[in-house]
Amino acid sequence: MRIRELRQAIGLSQEALADQAGFARTYLSRIETGGANPSLDAIETLATALQINVESLFVVSKETLE
Amino acid sequence: MRIRELRQAIGLSQEALADQAGFARTYLSRIETGGANPSLDAIETLATALQINVESLFVVSKETLE
Repeated sequence: MRIRELRQAIGLSQEALADQAGFARTYLSRIETGGANPSLDAIETLATALQINVESLFVVSKETLE
Repeated sequence: MRIRELRQAIGLSQEALADQAGFARTYLSRIETGGANPSLDAIETLATALQINVESLFVVSKETLE
């Protein structure tokens, strides 16, 4: 899941996105680094906070492939 | 998540997919109907068992839109 990449693309700090999603910043940090195993509900909450659909969280971006 | 649709598209029974993923059939059933809130790990396991990428689980198919 490319939470960090998408968060940074819209210029949000970890703290701002965590606030938006109602998560602790430390939990968001662990999600971003793969240290947490979020539920589908949590993933949907993050997608909403990022204003994207869940699918986009799993699409590998062109920039990553290049 | 469109687990049921993709499972049926490849002709797998609930039991067969549950076996493949190492889940109880009742748990898979609840995931399919939205009654369970699977973790990202569980979602990845299901995608692997369906031989698709996670992204595809969240793409709305053309047939659904038509």
